[in-house]
Amino acid sequence: MKILETVLYAEDLHAAHHFYVELLGLEAISFNPERSLFLRLTGSVLILFRATKTIIPDAGVPPHGCTGQGHMAFAAGPGDIESWKQRLQAANIEILQEITWENGARSLYFPDPSGNLLEFAEPKLWDIEG
Amino acid sequence: MKILETVLYAEDLHAAHHFYVELLGLEAISFNPERSLFLRLTGSVLILFRATKTIIPDAGVPPHGCTGQGHMAFAAGPGDIESWKQRLQAANIEILQEITWENGARSLYFPDPSGNLLEFAEPKLWDIEG
Repeated sequence: MKILETVLYAEDLHAAHHFYVELLGLEAISFNPERSLFLRLTGSVLILFRATKTIIPDAGVPPHGCTGQGHMAFAAGPGDIESWKQRLQAANIEILQEITWENGARSLYFPDPSGNLLEFAEPKLWDIEG
Repeated sequence: MKILETVLYAEDLHAAHHFYVELLGLEAISFNPERSLFLRLTGSVLILFRATKTIIPDAGVPPHGCTGQGHMAFAAGPGDIESWKQRLQAANIEILQEITWENGARSLYFPDPSGNLLEFAEPKLWDIEG
């Protein structure tokens, strides 16, 4: 089974667009600042929704929406951890934590503008080919 | 960029284990009923966390945790929508909505035991090869 859509929530989608598209370099599939930002990744999409616009029944999909700090990880290729660390620091994004796991895989934790906890992690963390 | 980890939150991880492992057939990588259920998917992992155990600082990773209804979608292969619909209904899981999108891709929406909104969707929805 594969994941097709991963979802995070953010109320300020302009800030999310700046962060995910301009800083992280993701491709926007569609952007409605009032409701959603759809981002294309390799083999899947990442969606930022405004929870306040999705927890109410509407003519679209069933209601959903979270408050708090969501979490997800991007796969980091060889050398990615260091280069992302530099890029994030240059953009004044706080590096919250760095971990080298027991099997040698590395993780880098940082916040998005809404406080979601993001991570770059080397796929070997889960015995996945990078 | 690829997604390596997708996260949902659930307080009752025993119910989550029953649902994701026994009903959906996902492989559990690790299961700590007090804190987390790690599930192996093709090329990534899905993690169910108890938000009440992750929003507090601990010796591990930075705090995170959401309340409400998260959302994610699994990729559905040809014929999967129909077969999953039958399996879910046989397990008394409510089918919340079925959609055929403008480009012909189909989606099936259903809840997990914690109220997260799950979806099976055909990858062509996002011009992704199935």
